[in-house]
Amino acid sequence: MDLNADLGEGFGSWTMGDDFALLEVITSANIACGFHAGDPSIMRRVTAHAVERGVAIGAHVGYDDKPGFGRRFLDVEPAVLRDEVVYQIGALDAFARIAGDRVRYVKPHGALYNTIGTHEEQAAAVVGAIVDYDPSLPVLGLPGSAWLRLAAEAGLPIVHEAFADRAYTSEGTLVSRREAGSVLHDGAEIAARCTAMATGGAIEDSSGGLLQLTPGSICVHGDTPGAVDIAQQVRKALEGAGVTVSPFGH
Amino acid sequence: MDLNADLGEGFGSWTMGDDFALLEVITSANIACGFHAGDPSIMRRVTAHAVERGVAIGAHVGYDDKPGFGRRFLDVEPAVLRDEVVYQIGALDAFARIAGDRVRYVKPHGALYNTIGTHEEQAAAVVGAIVDYDPSLPVLGLPGSAWLRLAAEAGLPIVHEAFADRAYTSEGTLVSRREAGSVLHDGAEIAARCTAMATGGAIEDSSGGLLQLTPGSICVHGDTPGAVDIAQQVRKALEGAGVTVSPFGH
Amino acid sequence: MDLNADLGEGFGSWTMGDDFALLEVITSANIACGFHAGDPSIMRRVTAHAVERGVAIGAHVGYDDKPGFGRRFLDVEPAVLRDEVVYQIGALDAFARIAGDRVRYVKPHGALYNTIGTHEEQAAAVVGAIVDYDPSLPVLGLPGSAWLRLAAEAGLPIVHEAFADRAYTSEGTLVSRREAGSVLHDGAEIAARCTAMATGGAIEDSSGGLLQLTPGSICVHGDTPGAVDIAQQVRKALEGAGVTVSPFGH
Amino acid sequence: MDLNADLGEGFGSWTMGDDFALLEVITSANIACGFHAGDPSIMRRVTAHAVERGVAIGAHVGYDDKPGFGRRFLDVEPAVLRDEVVYQIGALDAFARIAGDRVRYVKPHGALYNTIGTHEEQAAAVVGAIVDYDPSLPVLGLPGSAWLRLAAEAGLPIVHEAFADRAYTSEGTLVSRREAGSVLHDGAEIAARCTAMATGGAIEDSSGGLLQLTPGSICVHGDTPGAVDIAQQVRKALEGAGVTVSPFGH
Repeated sequence: MDLNADLGEGFGSWTMGDDFALLEVITSANIACGFHAGDPSIMRRVTAHAVERGVAIGAHVGYDDKPGFGRRFLDVEPAVLRDEVVYQIGALDAFARIAGDRVRYVKPHGALYNTIGTHEEQAAAVVGAIVDYDPSLPVLGLPGSAWLRLAAEAGLPIVHEAFADRAYTSEGTLVSRREAGSVLHDGAEIAARCTAMATGGAIEDSSGGLLQLTPGSICVHGDTPGAVDIAQQVRKALEGAGVTVSPFGH
Repeated sequence: MDLNADLGEGFGSWTMGDDFALLEVITSANIACGFHAGDPSIMRRVTAHAVERGVAIGAHVGYDDKPGFGRRFLDVEPAVLRDEVVYQIGALDAFARIAGDRVRYVKPHGALYNTIGTHEEQAAAVVGAIVDYDPSLPVLGLPGSAWLRLAAEAGLPIVHEAFADRAYTSEGTLVSRREAGSVLHDGAEIAARCTAMATGGAIEDSSGGLLQLTPGSICVHGDTPGAVDIAQQVRKALEGAGVTVSPFGH
Repeated sequence: MDLNADLGEGFGSWTMGDDFALLEVITSANIACGFHAGDPSIMRRVTAHAVERGVAIGAHVGYDDKPGFGRRFLDVEPAVLRDEVVYQIGALDAFARIAGDRVRYVKPHGALYNTIGTHEEQAAAVVGAIVDYDPSLPVLGLPGSAWLRLAAEAGLPIVHEAFADRAYTSEGTLVSRREAGSVLHDGAEIAARCTAMATGGAIEDSSGGLLQLTPGSICVHGDTPGAVDIAQQVRKALEGAGVTVSPFGH
Repeated sequence: MDLNADLGEGFGSWTMGDDFALLEVITSANIACGFHAGDPSIMRRVTAHAVERGVAIGAHVGYDDKPGFGRRFLDVEPAVLRDEVVYQIGALDAFARIAGDRVRYVKPHGALYNTIGTHEEQAAAVVGAIVDYDPSLPVLGLPGSAWLRLAAEAGLPIVHEAFADRAYTSEGTLVSRREAGSVLHDGAEIAARCTAMATGGAIEDSSGGLLQLTPGSICVHGDTPGAVDIAQQVRKALEGAGVTVSPFGH
């Protein structure tokens, strides 16, 4: 099983999360590319460290919006968005290649990730950018999203992810963050759910039923208090259950 | 002889110069990479058009300073500057590769170009970035500059440029813009000087003597009134004198 | 009758429109405040010139989005938008006061203007910011918009504007730009329509009927080819019809 | 005695220092104005809280350089710098007035503070901006700096500051940060030195002699580990020695 997390989300003198602690736990790093967060020096440092650790480098592309951390929908023209995604992947790939590897996948960030779950034009723009850049580049996203459907139609390799600390409905969709209980906080419970996902077991959905998820990657978080602890518990539980933790596709 | 000019210096809704007219005249395009000017969509458009026309694509890397158009010295740490230059080349290269070519050379812009004529640390940072990215990438600059010396020491191919519309001292250095007569405005005179440079002849220096320059490329401008006209006169004069106008290295 | 136009929309080395020609024609200047366009030096220059000419200074507040020129919806949190509008008015007011006047009104720009026609939360944020800053400050906008309704409820003085070069439906709303004939280009026709609006007459609506508009200000444009010419024709026609052209509220 | 510190230096989702803890200790807040750090919502929040606590609001104006946090010299034209300083003061003053107070003083930040210690043109630009905005506005800075000399010549009220945690030479200038022992870390020692400064006593200079400083304000830091603790020790020591801790000029 692969564990992915968002990294490199500082900016200049500002920091966010503990990148180097997370790199000891995860196997795929979604690295910010300087649009919603990150800057060239952070990108180089995190990328170099990830490659050293055998962590796969993903382009965490986002809206051009540092004031909003890429968390606000921006009605950017699809053609412009497409070019912005190409730009971000190309910039990150330069650092990946310097570090002796290359960008291994693309995962959109924040509001862009949410938007292209349903916004067909922006979804097509993101897919088009990846096809432009490298049509063999896998994409990492939520099952059922518009952009993964378009990515599959375009021939891009698809990897589904599940969220370690989120509640799921019986249909396998995320419970809205506005509802109580949508985000789990107990490390042991989160680790047990991840182990179930990784070993063909079922987790409890929000209506008390059993739900089987078969993700190719599990997303853990790094920017909340206790996040690194929880990620460590997840990894330890997976390894304890005999699951090999390694980048997807390896 | 190669003719180079700065292109892609608009930003969003703002325009600068007439990129498409210049692309009919020049053979090497110094394309802004989104730091001092340019944005992903401009980069894509200009790059695609340049490749179609057989114009070589150069990374016109600059300080991260759109409010100042990269024309103000910024005391950025060398390590940060190095990463910023890598980032810019990588982003432009993505569009060059999509267009079926790749970045063919690097030329710094504005205050960065001037600064690294003498500022050893920033010069080394720019050279280091290019070596990091691709040690076979030629650099285009002014003879006598610190950064070209360091580039040569690092094994990068060096191309010297001359300025079509600038007066030169008897030592072959540029007459300061603060002095009267430092910038030439007469298209016929400029074209004649360029033809001399391209055919082994001499030009008149600022003290009335004769000066022989042997540039690998001549820089024409595109952002002043009449600039495209002058560039066209230069090209016509070169071709009239039997000079092949094509990208350096071809 | 008041004539308003957007000014100060350059940024650093980039220019947009002919501010100084327009200042000879209009009586209210919607001056960009550095968020969607403009910068401190442009703001100071345009503001000083406007005050000298007796042109009223309006804060043309916009989304924080120079790459998109404020023309793209941004789903910014209302509380953040409120603070951004206060910031912009305060900054412009500093230059207005240095020039011996003060900000006389507020008109939102581009996508913000359009959005708060219907988006209640963002509309309330803009209104709240103006009330915070100065509850006696008039607002300039389109009749029927959500934000003018909220502004009126909050006790802000309201001024309705009409667009000189836009076609109107029989209900008095703008014909969508996507429809043919939505934008008028004939200077004489535009001038005649403006004269009708200013003298209690009717204009022809898009279905061929007669429509009476009673704007407190007419918006002319400055950033399209021929725009200044058309603005001059409008002013000449108004004056020829005996209409006093002066800032609203004077 | 007045205690000042830098506040509001976050940006969007990024935080810096513990503004609210510091506001319990200091009496003058140097609030970032959105150029080197800060954003409208942070400015509003910190300003409102400062006014509630009786803490004086200072405009902490800086270079337009978020990537470098305003810590890098930028060779901005003096006329542009002047306008940028006006813009920043005006924007902050809007929030100060909404909170029921107004900007009480100006203190430049980081590289701008250091630069205008000796750079006459930029120093004159900063002084000119303050005179433009409000010639009764006090300025807070280091004795011996070019800008305080120009400020005095321009009639601005001058307040000298001393640094709580910095070593001083026998001439009363700061020991360079490059030298060992230039920054003090022991809270008790720092508190004792501040008490000496506030009660007419002497501190030990870097050569072992005695030095008397008579600052109008003491600068404490908030962005390093333990900084708030040290600031609290300083305040406690001052109050224990019978010194009234309140904003300068009160």
